Amino acid sequence: MKIGFIGLGNLGTPIALNLLESGHQLFVYNRTTAKTAPLTAKGAVATNSIEALAKECHIVFSIVSDDNAVRSICTGEQGLLAHLAPGSIHVNISTILPATAAEMAALHEQHGLNYLAAPVFGRPEIVTARKANFVISGKESARKQIEPLLKDAGGAGVWDFGDMITAANTVKLCGNFLIGAASEAIGESTTLAQNSGVDTQKMWSMFTQTLFNAPIYHIYSAIIANAKYEPAAFTMPLGLKDIKLVLQQADQVNQNMPLAQLLQQHMETLISQGKGHLDWSAVSLATH
Amino acid sequence: MKIGFIGLGNLGTPIALNLLESGHQLFVYNRTTAKTAPLTAKGAVATNSIEALAKECHIVFSIVSDDNAVRSICTGEQGLLAHLAPGSIHVNISTILPATAAEMAALHEQHGLNYLAAPVFGRPEIVTARKANFVISGKESARKQIEPLLKDAGGAGVWDFGDMITAANTVKLCGNFLIGAASEAIGESTTLAQNSGVDTQKMWSMFTQTLFNAPIYHIYSAIIANAKYEPAAFTMPLGLKDIKLVLQQADQVNQNMPLAQLLQQHMETLISQGKGHLDWSAVSLATH
Repeated sequence: MKIGFIGLGNLGTPIALNLLESGHQLFVYNRTTAKTAPLTAKGAVATNSIEALAKECHIVFSIVSDDNAVRSICTGEQGLLAHLAPGSIHVNISTILPATAAEMAALHEQHGLNYLAAPVFGRPEIVTARKANFVISGKESARKQIEPLLKDAGGAGVWDFGDMITAANTVKLCGNFLIGAASEAIGESTTLAQNSGVDTQKMWSMFTQTLFNAPIYHIYSAIIANAKYEPAAFTMPLGLKDIKLVLQQADQVNQNMPLAQLLQQHMETLISQGKGHLDWSAVSLATH
Repeated sequence: MKIGFIGLGNLGTPIALNLLESGHQLFVYNRTTAKTAPLTAKGAVATNSIEALAKECHIVFSIVSDDNAVRSICTGEQGLLAHLAPGSIHVNISTILPATAAEMAALHEQHGLNYLAAPVFGRPEIVTARKANFVISGKESARKQIEPLLKDAGGAGVWDFGDMITAANTVKLCGNFLIGAASEAIGESTTLAQNSGVDTQKMWSMFTQTLFNAPIYHIYSAIIANAKYEPAAFTMPLGLKDIKLVLQQADQVNQNMPLAQLLQQHMETLISQGKGHLDWSAVSLATH
């Protein structure tokens, strides 16, 4: 199947590679052209505009950095809305505000297009291992058609949250908040154990075999107990962007999220201290 | 084997029942005598003083409410130190400050006795199902001798943290802090999902099959997503007591723990609002 793919960053690249390896014909576009090289080396066709890509494909995946980048690839003279054939499906993997997903879905509908929200859980190595989890919401026909493609894209799980277009992005924000909160808790407790003379490797060996035997605690306790924050799979500014989206969503529903606020403060502190290049799981270092 | 058991509360009772069912002869003592009934019904001998219990047994387990209760059962004319035969082992399951464990170990040594720190992870139903986890530290001879008894007491795991007497209680405090932090995060995110119109049962079904597939998230997301805070397995004042111990330990090692402070504030708020009878996993309700 001819599939368009926009956004070849840290996560976009392994997702696109999975689609290629699953036998799909891929047309790729990235603002920075050099990033298309790993894909074209394996048979993808690089296009030099979204217009060119949109004219080749009836299904387009995108994974870009933020809400404005999503607006930018969709709207304007060079955007998807202007160039996709009616009936095409745009699958947006980007982590954005649920309200932006609703705004995009409405615009796509006006153009006779289908918009599917499909944010992903998975660091790059998880995607490469085809153990990512996609969360989807949107029209049923689009969900059914795209689900097998998300499996080809590296999704061990594709979790269907139904018709309400905002659902998938809300779940994604909840998940990233939960990961950030777990990182802060792992960081504070590991430092307490270290300062108290406890073998933290042994402690985490126990916790990850018992109470906290979950992928997130395995991955992040290994990073944090070994202070292996570089190279970052997900840097502090990216984590801060997501936590700000969480707080924006909380604001939209008139809710306080004091733990999310704490995470925001810590991330801002670390960035202001020149530690923005660290993995976002270093969040608790702000308290030292 | 003749074993003494002091403290028949929510957790003490199922632990003592497990020891009985494993074939040990049990001498029990509880300040409130009525609580010995479920044990004597199954063959345990109730004693009306710690002195009487200490004269029967060379191994005594205790699980009492706080550091002062531990001091009280150990010291004074009626305490274990005055009445246990030299060479006896006192296994203290109570959650206390690591410094109190060190203080107790030194006092026991002065009396020719052995003190083993053996705090436990497990709510009552987990203990009954023999899926608890004990964390131990103290002298090697005591660790080796007591380990099989802790398995008989319901320990699916007995995790050995070596000679340093303070280690086990430090790990226990880290674990309870991690559980409290997870409860706050689960609570804030579940409320965000609810307020945003997302099916939270479906959300937690996904998270507990993927990123957060761990006992703590299974147990607490079920409580929180269903707002089933009563009857409490562990009430707010008990949770607050433990979080205060966490902060005392942090203070002793000159460390800030902002997330632990947040949990303390929330628990104090809820108790002041008359919600102290709720399960401590209701912690995030303080933000409403």
